[in-house]
Amino acid sequence: MQEEYYMELALSLAKGAAYQTSPNPPVGAVVVKDGRVIGMGAHLKAGEAHAEVTALAQAGADAEGADIYVTLEPCAHFGKTPPCADLVIEKGIRRVFIAAVDPNPLVGGKGIEKIRAAGIEVTTGICEKEAIALLTPFFHFIQTKRPYVTIKTAVTADGKTAAHTGHSRWITSDAAREDVHLLRSQNDAILTGIGTVLLDNPLLTSRLPRGGKNPIRVLLDTHLRVPVDFHIIQNKEAKTIIFCAIDAQTKKQRALEDEGVTVIRLPHMSVDTVLNELGKMGIMTLLVEAGAEINASFLDAGTFNKLIMYMAPKLIGGKSAPSSFGGLGGSVMDEALAIDFTSVEMIGPDLKIVAERRGF
Amino acid sequence: MQEEYYMELALSLAKGAAYQTSPNPPVGAVVVKDGRVIGMGAHLKAGEAHAEVTALAQAGADAEGADIYVTLEPCAHFGKTPPCADLVIEKGIRRVFIAAVDPNPLVGGKGIEKIRAAGIEVTTGICEKEAIALLTPFFHFIQTKRPYVTIKTAVTADGKTAAHTGHSRWITSDAAREDVHLLRSQNDAILTGIGTVLLDNPLLTSRLPRGGKNPIRVLLDTHLRVPVDFHIIQNKEAKTIIFCAIDAQTKKQRALEDEGVTVIRLPHMSVDTVLNELGKMGIMTLLVEAGAEINASFLDAGTFNKLIMYMAPKLIGGKSAPSSFGGLGGSVMDEALAIDFTSVEMIGPDLKIVAERRGF
Repeated sequence: MQEEYYMELALSLAKGAAYQTSPNPPVGAVVVKDGRVIGMGAHLKAGEAHAEVTALAQAGADAEGADIYVTLEPCAHFGKTPPCADLVIEKGIRRVFIAAVDPNPLVGGKGIEKIRAAGIEVTTGICEKEAIALLTPFFHFIQTKRPYVTIKTAVTADGKTAAHTGHSRWITSDAAREDVHLLRSQNDAILTGIGTVLLDNPLLTSRLPRGGKNPIRVLLDTHLRVPVDFHIIQNKEAKTIIFCAIDAQTKKQRALEDEGVTVIRLPHMSVDTVLNELGKMGIMTLLVEAGAEINASFLDAGTFNKLIMYMAPKLIGGKSAPSSFGGLGGSVMDEALAIDFTSVEMIGPDLKIVAERRGF
Repeated sequence: MQEEYYMELALSLAKGAAYQTSPNPPVGAVVVKDGRVIGMGAHLKAGEAHAEVTALAQAGADAEGADIYVTLEPCAHFGKTPPCADLVIEKGIRRVFIAAVDPNPLVGGKGIEKIRAAGIEVTTGICEKEAIALLTPFFHFIQTKRPYVTIKTAVTADGKTAAHTGHSRWITSDAAREDVHLLRSQNDAILTGIGTVLLDNPLLTSRLPRGGKNPIRVLLDTHLRVPVDFHIIQNKEAKTIIFCAIDAQTKKQRALEDEGVTVIRLPHMSVDTVLNELGKMGIMTLLVEAGAEINASFLDAGTFNKLIMYMAPKLIGGKSAPSSFGGLGGSVMDEALAIDFTSVEMIGPDLKIVAERRGF
C-alpha cells in the first residue's frame, strides 16, 4: 500500500540518524502531495530541528493540502524547539500518517489530539512494529528514566570468556571486533568494571574505518584502583565517568579529576543506583562490556534489555575457565531469566547471536 | 544441467536411507535411458542389495545402452554381495556418472578402472560436494576404523549445562528434546558417563512419534558403579555396552551380564581405546551425550568430528555452574581447537548450532 511505501521512506530517514539523537528518539518525516515527495527530513541531533520541521521547510508553501508521514507522533509541548503539532496545523497539512504513538508522558497522544482538534485527518499504526523496534531504547528511557542496557559478550563455542589462566586475546575474529566498535558507536555510554580494566587496559573507543562517535566510558571502581596512567584515564577521545564507594580515597579522586575524569561517589554501589545516575545524565543507551560478575549483577537485578553474544568457532575447555555470567546464579532451571533469540548472523567466522529480555 | 538433475535424484534416494546402512555408506542410483528414468534404488541396509543392484533390476533388459548415476563409485570387490562394477558391465550400461570416489582402500578407484577397462565412459565429480557431505561419517570410519563422533550439548545462553546446584531439567524445549531423539536414531551408538547416569537415570532411547532405531548405549563406568535396576540396564529396547577398568568387580560384571549387558574391560580407559573398540564392532557413528569431563576428554584427544549445541533462550548465571567442556582446558586462546559453524536454526524457541572440526 502507498501509505506503507511513504512510511518506509520515513523509517529509512529515521534509521539513518539512529544512535545519534539521544536523549531524543530517531524520527523521520516525509511530505507528499499528489503522489510526489515534496519534503523529507530526519531529526539528526538533540537540540536541532525535529524531522517534521526539516521536511516541512523543504516543502515550503506547497505543504498546504499535502500529507505528512511521521514515524513518531508529532510533539505537542515546548521543549528545545516549538511543538511540531502546531507547525503541522499552521502549514495547512491535509492528512497526518503516524507509525508509533509517543509513550512520553509529556506527549502521549496530545500531539494527535491537537492535530485532530484542528480538523486534520490522522491515521496511526502504519508500519508500527518496525517503528517501535527502532524506538525501543527511547521508549525504555522515557518510561524508566534509565538507559536501555545491552550486554555484549564474546565467548568460545563452549561458552568461555577466557582460558582457565585468564588469557582471552583474542577469542573472536577481527571482523567481530570491528562489529563491536560499531556497537560502541551506537551507544551513548559503555560500562565496564575495574577487573577488566586492570587486566586489559582497554581504550574502549570506537575505532571505525569511517569514524564513529565515542561513547562515554563508565567505570565501576569501588576503591578507585584504576591507575592514572591507564588508557581509560589518559585517552581524551571520550569522556570517562567513574563510580566509586562513598569512602574511596579523596586524593585519588583529585588525581583523576585533574585528568578530566568525572568521579561520582555512591552511598550504595549497585546496578540500580548506577543506572539511575546514568539516566539522570540523559544517557539513553548503555553497552555493558564487562566481566562475569558485573554481567551477573545486571542479570540478578533484572536490569538489561538486550544480549549480543559473539561466539567464536573454537573450543578451549576448562572447568575453571570463566563464562559470561558469574555470581551465584539460579538454583533451578525455572529461576533462569527468559530471553528470546531475535537474530543470528555470521560475522566473519563467528556467530553473532542477539537476544532480548522476554516481555521487554 | 541434466547430469546434476539425475544425480540429485540419486542423492535424494541415498539421503532417504541415510543413518540405516552402517557400516556401509548410504548410496543412491538412478538408471536413465533416452531421458526417461527406468530404474531407481538405494542401499537400505548392510547385507542387502546395493543401490546399483536395485536400480538395475528395475531397469531390467532396458538397462542395455542406458546411463547410470551413482552417488558413490561402484564397488569392485566381493563383500556380502558381488561387485557392482561387474554388474554395470554385464548389463551393457553405456555411461556411468559418479558423484564421489570411494576412499575405501578395498575399492579406491578400482571400480572406475574396471568399468573404464570395459570401454564404458565414466564421469566423476557430479554433485561431489553434496555427496561427500552425506558420506563423511562413512569416509571417516573407513579411513580411521573408528566411529564418526558427534558431541551433543544443551546449554543456556550463558553456556551452562546446569545450575550451580546441578539442576538441569529442563534446559531446552520439548521441540529440541524431540530433535535429540531424532539425532539418537541417526547414530549407531550413544555414549555417556556414569556421572550422567547416576544423576539422571536416563533411558537413552529414541522416543519418536513415528518410531526410530535405538542406538546401542555405551556407558563409561570405570568401577562398574551403575545400579542393576537402572533404566540403562533394565530397558531392553536397546543393547547396552559398558566399558570398565581391568580391575572392576567380577561379581558386578556377572550381574550386569545376566541382564544381557556386554561388559568390556580395558587395560587403559581412554577415549582412544574406547573408540578403537567401538570401531571394531562396526559402529560407524557415535553420539556423545555426556558431562563436561567426558566431553573434555574427547576435546583433549582431538577425537570428535561434529558438535551439535542446543541453546535455550535463558540465562541462569553462576560462577560454579558447569559448562559443556570441563577438564583443565587450554592455557591460551591459541590452544583452542578450531571448528567451523556449519548451520544454525531455530528448534522451537531454542537455537540449534552445528559445527564441525576444522579440516576434518
